[in-house]
Amino acid sequence: MKTFTRRDFGWTLGKGITATALLGSTSLACGQSAKNENKKLGVALVGLGSYSTYQLAPSLQDTEHCYLAGIVTGTKEKEQVWQDKYGIPKENTYNYDNFDTIANNEDIDIVYVVLPNSMHADFSIRAAKAGKHVICEKPMAISVAECDAIIDACNKAGVKLSVGYRMQSDPYTKEVKKYVAEKTFGNVHFVSSDAGYISNGNPDQWRLNKELSGGGALMNMGVYSIQTSIYGCGSNPSSVSAQEFSTRPDYFKDTDETITAQFEFPNGAVAHMMTSHNANGNRLKSHCSNGWFELDPAHSYGPISGRTSNGNVISFPHQRQQALQMDDFAKHILMGTPNVAPGEMGKRDMIIVEAIYRSIAEGGKKQTLDLGNMGIVG
Amino acid sequence: MKTFTRRDFGWTLGKGITATALLGSTSLACGQSAKNENKKLGVALVGLGSYSTYQLAPSLQDTEHCYLAGIVTGTKEKEQVWQDKYGIPKENTYNYDNFDTIANNEDIDIVYVVLPNSMHADFSIRAAKAGKHVICEKPMAISVAECDAIIDACNKAGVKLSVGYRMQSDPYTKEVKKYVAEKTFGNVHFVSSDAGYISNGNPDQWRLNKELSGGGALMNMGVYSIQTSIYGCGSNPSSVSAQEFSTRPDYFKDTDETITAQFEFPNGAVAHMMTSHNANGNRLKSHCSNGWFELDPAHSYGPISGRTSNGNVISFPHQRQQALQMDDFAKHILMGTPNVAPGEMGKRDMIIVEAIYRSIAEGGKKQTLDLGNMGIVG
Repeated sequence: MKTFTRRDFGWTLGKGITATALLGSTSLACGQSAKNENKKLGVALVGLGSYSTYQLAPSLQDTEHCYLAGIVTGTKEKEQVWQDKYGIPKENTYNYDNFDTIANNEDIDIVYVVLPNSMHADFSIRAAKAGKHVICEKPMAISVAECDAIIDACNKAGVKLSVGYRMQSDPYTKEVKKYVAEKTFGNVHFVSSDAGYISNGNPDQWRLNKELSGGGALMNMGVYSIQTSIYGCGSNPSSVSAQEFSTRPDYFKDTDETITAQFEFPNGAVAHMMTSHNANGNRLKSHCSNGWFELDPAHSYGPISGRTSNGNVISFPHQRQQALQMDDFAKHILMGTPNVAPGEMGKRDMIIVEAIYRSIAEGGKKQTLDLGNMGIVG
Repeated sequence: MKTFTRRDFGWTLGKGITATALLGSTSLACGQSAKNENKKLGVALVGLGSYSTYQLAPSLQDTEHCYLAGIVTGTKEKEQVWQDKYGIPKENTYNYDNFDTIANNEDIDIVYVVLPNSMHADFSIRAAKAGKHVICEKPMAISVAECDAIIDACNKAGVKLSVGYRMQSDPYTKEVKKYVAEKTFGNVHFVSSDAGYISNGNPDQWRLNKELSGGGALMNMGVYSIQTSIYGCGSNPSSVSAQEFSTRPDYFKDTDETITAQFEFPNGAVAHMMTSHNANGNRLKSHCSNGWFELDPAHSYGPISGRTSNGNVISFPHQRQQALQMDDFAKHILMGTPNVAPGEMGKRDMIIVEAIYRSIAEGGKKQTLDLGNMGIVG
């Protein structure tokens, strides 16, 4: 962790500066005080694929409370490129074999796991054991059991855990959550949500390899449809039924191509969602007793676009969602603000994912969900 | 049937004028020639509820090839009101008991059945036996067997048959059908369609009485979702699965409140639809390989509103859909133009409705549909 007067040091500050740790990173998790407001937490990205390259690293430059302090990569050639581009010291550069020695590096406060889904649990747990706070990219893992293991490891290590749900920090998402909470358009009766894109790339990409991804569209874009269905209703669902559709089995060899699902909510709302690797879709629409609100696109990197039945256009200045997300987590660590995307939320969504796959396996049979006690709506 | 030089006689022409039948109405079905272009066909509305009162009767005043020639009502008090308002002769006024004597009335070319769903088949068949062309409001009937009986009766009587699918004559619908046919945005991959409204009125209304309606939301707005799914894809579906949701069982005592369904299409597209008597929804969105098109609202009385991924707004001058619909049917009778909403289309949709109810009864099990031979896309 570094101390800065304000963010005007900008993102180049990391370059060549030797870190001066003021507090051990683990102890800091509890050191919530006003003076922490000027602290910047060092983030290490684990996995330097396209999401780290084009979203997270640039977003880190826009954060107020974080900076890119380290990298963990399995690709030797990337090390020098990233070190040069972001001023990352050689000693803050790791590979998957020596990753655990990150425990000794006081520059690193947060480890952000951006690996294929099946590797999330392993690296998140190892990061926690190394005494680092953890951001685990969505989906949190490939099973509920793995989510539990990550949560347990973070609890035992006394570190904070967040899932990479960038939309939870997005102002458009917050705005529609407000509509739901304040019943701006009355009670929500029906929610429709879509999240998909057409995959035509390399059929050997990890997202299409079940061993690495844990599943197809549902384990990728599907998590957005689940989340928008939930915050579009303001409640955890009480049941789900689901269907799977396959039209390009030669390409989607062992992962789901298109899935539709239907939710019931204890507050009387109903939702249907679709997610696909073979169709575009990026939308939330909530039909309420006295009107409606819509985001379309609802969860792209931005700008998001929204409308309501009273003729209003929902509009906020564009900010990088990932910057807002990482700052939200940093503020949670530094100042004790709420964790907007805790591990329990990731686990809740994985419970739903497993129920969706179970419903499909059982020919569309409705699955009861007992999420009431989880208390995580979001 | 009357002969007018052009439509400039306007709708008041019927008032007090004794009809001068030029041709027997039945023989006219085959008399397709250019000179028929100036003919106006006499329409009798069967059932003077709100749809006849606020949509069909006013729309008839906007038609080029039809006029309101007669009424059939079970409510004595409505007779004089309608006679006065629309200049309908006493002898063109019927009740449900003497309805069959309409066979002797040469003023009446078309009988438009606007009764509760369970009465569609009876009155459509009686109209056909009376030698009148038939428009049967949607849904065509409450079973496939009834649809077959109507089609058979019309074939035997040599009269034309159309279902009250006003959207089939709507320019917005035609525009999106053109996108699908011409692959303006490439192949359709996924279609999302909603059709519903919140019912809060008299719980004794016929739409909420299964004996009269044959079913709830699906037998009302559901037909729009089915139709938009189909013309949003350009193909009859090859399978359907469905789910039913109930949140207000005290109000929706014996009819379905909300239904979701999913379709597969032989051309590789997938669709999901919702229909509800407890949620608003009025939308078609087709996600294609190279873009998308959307109608929202998609099937209200107008104005319809549409958008496409290339930034275009779909816009046509507002016309009463029911006027376009009745003129399309009149032109089919008079000039042999295509029947844009034939009985086979209504039957096709009832096959899908029955499969949806069957899927729900079987816990969401996918139902195979064999509609390929029907040749009715629309």
